[in-house]
Amino acid sequence: MGSTIELSSLDKLVSDTLSGDALKEFNRIHYGRTDHHDLPIKTNNVNFDIAAYNFPAKKEETRTPRIVRVGVIQHSIAISTDKPITEQRQGIFEKIRYIIETAGDEGVNILCLQEAWSMPFAFCTREKQPWCEFAESVHNGPSSQFLKEFATKYGMVIISPILERDETHGDTIWNTAVVINELGNVIGKHRKNHIPRVGDFNESTYYFEGNTGHPVFETKFGKIAINICYGRHHPLNWLMFGINGAEIVFNPSATVAGLSEHLWGVEARNAAIANSYFTCAINRVGTEIFPNEFTSGDGKSAHREFGHFYGSSYITAPDGTRTPGLSRIRDGLLIAQLDLNLCRQIKDKWGFTMTQRLNLYAESLNNAGKHDFQPQIVKNN
Amino acid sequence: MGSTIELSSLDKLVSDTLSGDALKEFNRIHYGRTDHHDLPIKTNNVNFDIAAYNFPAKKEETRTPRIVRVGVIQHSIAISTDKPITEQRQGIFEKIRYIIETAGDEGVNILCLQEAWSMPFAFCTREKQPWCEFAESVHNGPSSQFLKEFATKYGMVIISPILERDETHGDTIWNTAVVINELGNVIGKHRKNHIPRVGDFNESTYYFEGNTGHPVFETKFGKIAINICYGRHHPLNWLMFGINGAEIVFNPSATVAGLSEHLWGVEARNAAIANSYFTCAINRVGTEIFPNEFTSGDGKSAHREFGHFYGSSYITAPDGTRTPGLSRIRDGLLIAQLDLNLCRQIKDKWGFTMTQRLNLYAESLNNAGKHDFQPQIVKNN
Repeated sequence: MGSTIELSSLDKLVSDTLSGDALKEFNRIHYGRTDHHDLPIKTNNVNFDIAAYNFPAKKEETRTPRIVRVGVIQHSIAISTDKPITEQRQGIFEKIRYIIETAGDEGVNILCLQEAWSMPFAFCTREKQPWCEFAESVHNGPSSQFLKEFATKYGMVIISPILERDETHGDTIWNTAVVINELGNVIGKHRKNHIPRVGDFNESTYYFEGNTGHPVFETKFGKIAINICYGRHHPLNWLMFGINGAEIVFNPSATVAGLSEHLWGVEARNAAIANSYFTCAINRVGTEIFPNEFTSGDGKSAHREFGHFYGSSYITAPDGTRTPGLSRIRDGLLIAQLDLNLCRQIKDKWGFTMTQRLNLYAESLNNAGKHDFQPQIVKNN
Repeated sequence: MGSTIELSSLDKLVSDTLSGDALKEFNRIHYGRTDHHDLPIKTNNVNFDIAAYNFPAKKEETRTPRIVRVGVIQHSIAISTDKPITEQRQGIFEKIRYIIETAGDEGVNILCLQEAWSMPFAFCTREKQPWCEFAESVHNGPSSQFLKEFATKYGMVIISPILERDETHGDTIWNTAVVINELGNVIGKHRKNHIPRVGDFNESTYYFEGNTGHPVFETKFGKIAINICYGRHHPLNWLMFGINGAEIVFNPSATVAGLSEHLWGVEARNAAIANSYFTCAINRVGTEIFPNEFTSGDGKSAHREFGHFYGSSYITAPDGTRTPGLSRIRDGLLIAQLDLNLCRQIKDKWGFTMTQRLNLYAESLNNAGKHDFQPQIVKNN
């Protein structure tokens, strides 16, 4: 990919090429609505991609609209990976400070950052040092300290996915999303449930499968959950957040072109449809160069580049309509105004939670989990 | 929809408009590969849409390629719905006979028809008569009799989704897929697991949730399963076919524009990705006019039309690459040549079956299925 000119956006390519009725039909069939319901914003002339969309719901007689504005931020790292840890992290802080403030100024109520946002995604290297030094405490680590200020200033909930150091359990490391409420208090955390062993994603070298279940955080602005990165490939993970009552599930990720780009528009969107909630898929941006060479388990030569992280963050509503993606190459802020009443309206319309037959599957999965499980096979005759 | 000119294909719209590198990038990001790997076929000048694609796998040292050719047929009904039942069915038989023979001539090994293919999708009417008379016996009904001839002639497995009459259990009615093997024997059946109560899809009026579990049929050409229509909205349904070992899952459907079209490209494709198997999504074509008016539960006036069924049948590989869809408006035959070795290759690459934590979810679903279940909620503080 490195030597060709990167396409900035698949969505923009199509909307620049089609027009009139053809564009409307494309939008209807692909995105689920003929126009994108742009939301007016006051920000302009910024050095990052910014877009805002509206997802209204029908008026109800017995509930008032439950309007919430969510924001997601995608970004590249700030300075080279051979610089001191604290400088690298501070560089990212300074780089995204203005994007966070823009989110606050635009009235964002719930803001989510990308996976392991305060560090390079160094797990490709399989080196423990210096990368494990990026791991931080949930309550008092530098990322939480940094973000609490903005949570308080703007009265917004912030989800901060970090590399966690758990000092009270043997200095263990986890891939964790921290939830900071609108008063600046850490109200809880969720640890990544499914850990990849895929190509450069040697994450099982660093941390284990999460032990925090599928928590839903009942915030001032709605019931939210976090499905971290590779967990988006697991429909059961999405399902349990829905069963626990989530109205918005964030999917902070780090994933690269060549591996997953054609899956990106499918998985978080399918989860929104299957579970009648909103999903927000967030991917980092750019190519990261590491000090020492590493191999990717693909028979190719050792190299120092990891990427291209293709951005393309997007948001899907419970009715399956979605926003265009942010840029594939630039930092960005994606804002959406959601009426959370849409979740229950769609449950009533499609009935997926009524028709899902949970007891049947509890029994089936219980059998399937046994080592001597016998699959249901019909032989030819 | 009825008064505007119908778009024949979203895929064709894009490929006719974009060109060169832009089209390649669109194809790579959207379909998962820069070109569609067209498969040469000998048929031409037919009065239905026909397309064929290839899904190769890497060569292995210890297994030979396992090449199988699948075909799916989408079609409209043949004559008006006020004609006698037997004439309506016979009309469909005559209409699709030539499409089935074309599939046989093109070397199709496994052929799947659309949901309730031998009748109009009359459940919108909520009338029991005459529509229940379309229900037929699995083993000796007219549809099975009709198809056995082609299964034997071409040595192909045929999946026949019908409205089933079960005479041995109180003349009950089911929505059932019959599996006929290459010798013309019915080797088994699967009954639709999840039944919709959505708009014109009053199917719970006619039949209940299936009692046949999630069978995988071990045919001469590979391990196959059938997820009937509305079951595609349920990730657990897809999952259990995968756990039981399916390599190809067919999704015979009947669904209409306005309701589901923007979900169509997402759900069966996501299932292929999540379960490392091939999926074949099949939808009928056209608008069906019924003798008596009915309402759609949407506050609108009574009417006699049900549709537009938008076709757009497509096939997805376990790596998430997919074919363009068949026409939105014409009958069609979609053929794909699959190397089934790709399923295990993708399991090894992505590791979803290794990382899915079935025991965790068996316990979670067991709890969730209880009436006094307490969801995992973290309160604000």
